[in-house]
Amino acid sequence: MDIEKRISLLEKIAQDEKVALETLKEKIRQGTVVVPLNKKRKINHPCAIGEGMRVKVNVNLGSSWEADGIEEELKKLSVSIKYGADTVMDLSTGKNLKEIRKAILEQSPVPVGTVPIYEVAVKAMEEKGNFSSITPRDILQTIEEQAREGVDFFTIHCGLNRKTLEVFSRQKRVMDMVSRGGAILLNWMLAKNKENPLYEYFDKILEIAKEYEVTLSLGDSLRPGSVLDATDRAQIEELILLGELTQRAHSKGVQVIIEGPGHMALDQIETNVLAEKKICQGAPFYVLGPLVTDIALGYDHIAGAIGAAYAAYCGADFLCYVTPAEHLRLPTVEDVKEGLIAFKIAAHAGDLARGNKHAYIRDEQVSRARKKRNWEEQFELSFDPEKARAYYFRDRQKIKDVCSMCSKFCSIKLVDKCRKFLIK
Amino acid sequence: MDIEKRISLLEKIAQDEKVALETLKEKIRQGTVVVPLNKKRKINHPCAIGEGMRVKVNVNLGSSWEADGIEEELKKLSVSIKYGADTVMDLSTGKNLKEIRKAILEQSPVPVGTVPIYEVAVKAMEEKGNFSSITPRDILQTIEEQAREGVDFFTIHCGLNRKTLEVFSRQKRVMDMVSRGGAILLNWMLAKNKENPLYEYFDKILEIAKEYEVTLSLGDSLRPGSVLDATDRAQIEELILLGELTQRAHSKGVQVIIEGPGHMALDQIETNVLAEKKICQGAPFYVLGPLVTDIALGYDHIAGAIGAAYAAYCGADFLCYVTPAEHLRLPTVEDVKEGLIAFKIAAHAGDLARGNKHAYIRDEQVSRARKKRNWEEQFELSFDPEKARAYYFRDRQKIKDVCSMCSKFCSIKLVDKCRKFLIK
Repeated sequence: MDIEKRISLLEKIAQDEKVALETLKEKIRQGTVVVPLNKKRKINHPCAIGEGMRVKVNVNLGSSWEADGIEEELKKLSVSIKYGADTVMDLSTGKNLKEIRKAILEQSPVPVGTVPIYEVAVKAMEEKGNFSSITPRDILQTIEEQAREGVDFFTIHCGLNRKTLEVFSRQKRVMDMVSRGGAILLNWMLAKNKENPLYEYFDKILEIAKEYEVTLSLGDSLRPGSVLDATDRAQIEELILLGELTQRAHSKGVQVIIEGPGHMALDQIETNVLAEKKICQGAPFYVLGPLVTDIALGYDHIAGAIGAAYAAYCGADFLCYVTPAEHLRLPTVEDVKEGLIAFKIAAHAGDLARGNKHAYIRDEQVSRARKKRNWEEQFELSFDPEKARAYYFRDRQKIKDVCSMCSKFCSIKLVDKCRKFLIK
Repeated sequence: MDIEKRISLLEKIAQDEKVALETLKEKIRQGTVVVPLNKKRKINHPCAIGEGMRVKVNVNLGSSWEADGIEEELKKLSVSIKYGADTVMDLSTGKNLKEIRKAILEQSPVPVGTVPIYEVAVKAMEEKGNFSSITPRDILQTIEEQAREGVDFFTIHCGLNRKTLEVFSRQKRVMDMVSRGGAILLNWMLAKNKENPLYEYFDKILEIAKEYEVTLSLGDSLRPGSVLDATDRAQIEELILLGELTQRAHSKGVQVIIEGPGHMALDQIETNVLAEKKICQGAPFYVLGPLVTDIALGYDHIAGAIGAAYAAYCGADFLCYVTPAEHLRLPTVEDVKEGLIAFKIAAHAGDLARGNKHAYIRDEQVSRARKKRNWEEQFELSFDPEKARAYYFRDRQKIKDVCSMCSKFCSIKLVDKCRKFLIK
């Protein structure tokens, strides 16, 4: 991004993050922090993602071929903003994906990301019934169109090339490839016997990104889709390629984020975060979950929040939420809320664990309100005041200042009686 | 426990845990594994807790002064068993706590724990309106009565003595003391100016525990109730005392578990687990959460599952669940289910991360079913088949073998088309 032209924006972000402006600028120059913002967009809540910043949370929105209501997606956007999403991605693959993107770009006060290959694939599927009609030109045109519309960051699946595919083909995974973008490109590459256009024409993509100041999120087509496939040769081979592409992007002044797993047991997360930081020149790490087990159907927001919190502690900067609907259906508005709150907790847990002193302020406020048994203040400071209030008031409170769990035997109240001893 | 008398029980457990019987026996002798089971109880699902065993989950049940329905508590027990609780604790503090305990002991196929000081406190409060009428004799009698009834493990708050209290009084915590048992004993100790009977008469308690083969869970009255209070001098001073008491218990042949935090940011969990193992002779560590932030009202099962999974990875053996109702109300049946499933995920994530190869089998089964898009098999292998099924079938499936999220663009289906390439 053009740092000097965006100085007032950066001042606001530095203030918000409680870091010095010079520090922020230096990190953006080094590529360890990005501010995803298209030069054409004016939004109220831009954010900085990366080293030394608060951990951020992304919400995936967007229709599918089976559920393409625009109203529903805008409700999801509104819930996302209400509960504190830092960015949203429109992953629509329904027929009306252009209208949805336009509406989300108009209404979102936070940065908006997309996966341009989806639009290309949906169009090809509608028109020809397959992907092989896609040309590199279609892809570049779509990327440029979306950049012109104001999209702030793109997922570009450029880590899949003939070399990484070769490693992948020998890997014998349980789940092979679970990336949608990756699967589309794999089909195209095999049908055409050609190189992945997102890799081959990476310089062209950099030119577009540079012109519109779009941040590139380098997609991980080979992310593990099962804990049994995690940290294998295919995944790391792709990471190495993404590291080389990061260097090319940095040299052209394009901001880069690296996407990461996926499904991965807890013992491998620290290694993966370290490897990403080392191999990709400290570029911000954007993790999907990771889900720490494959078996949590209906509760993948919890399996994901566990992995995300620990990844954030280890240095991941940007968490892509997972909802309870993952692997089962397109998320509803309620699923979006559940997933987002789980990941807000994970991000905050990461901030505390990384020693962000400012993050402790809210915990102290809640704890002091709890100590005073000031219920309303606790509710207001929580992620979801309505739920907390409804939970508390479900039971009649026979004793006014305690909850129905301990009631007469409330430890806080009992210890308050001993105050004299405690302050001696 | 008397290992040779219980040999057929241990054979069953060793088989279930997939460890050699001799290994299990040796670990029980060393005190790094416990099998909480009163000599009077016969249950279908005993379990081993500790080093090299699968991570276990406890569910807290029990009435409060404001909600004392016995039927409700038995429903919670039944849900706990359905969703895989390894043990339950009856923490009743309502008037009918004896009947509830009796019913739970009768109906529970898994080990049952209690906190005997609660019964003593409830009785004193009912009869005299305060705790100062309690005598050490009352406490020892209640412990013996409950042991005779068949309780398998007791929480004994013996880590609070005049020395640890002294350190605590100088600590100036945000939340002071949040342990209910600890708060009752603190009030008693200050009112009477006497030593904590659970500490003073620890040898008597060991005699009872030895006679009935009750496992002692040494309670942490000084566990942090805010992330700001974690790992402070008071907490560690108490841990040191618990280590000394562990040694005394082991020397009398009494099985011991150590209770741990509480509220604690992720960066302190590894240190806490290591400290417990070192200071308490490798006795199994039983953690309450830990909650990785104070601000997750209504979602404390998620904040707790994050901490629990990481604690398990670091070596914690036994996870006490936390429900969404924590800090707000006595949990409902639904809250119990939500909390338990979150902690089953955490325990399983811990097993995977600790490299338990057998734990990977279920992930492989789910992933292979997912790869085949065999939905019913996935549902059946998940923690909550009904929820998974309901989620999947909420949307009409226009295409039968995929879900409504990716639909036509299902990556698994797209990659299956490339099978020839992948198996070359």
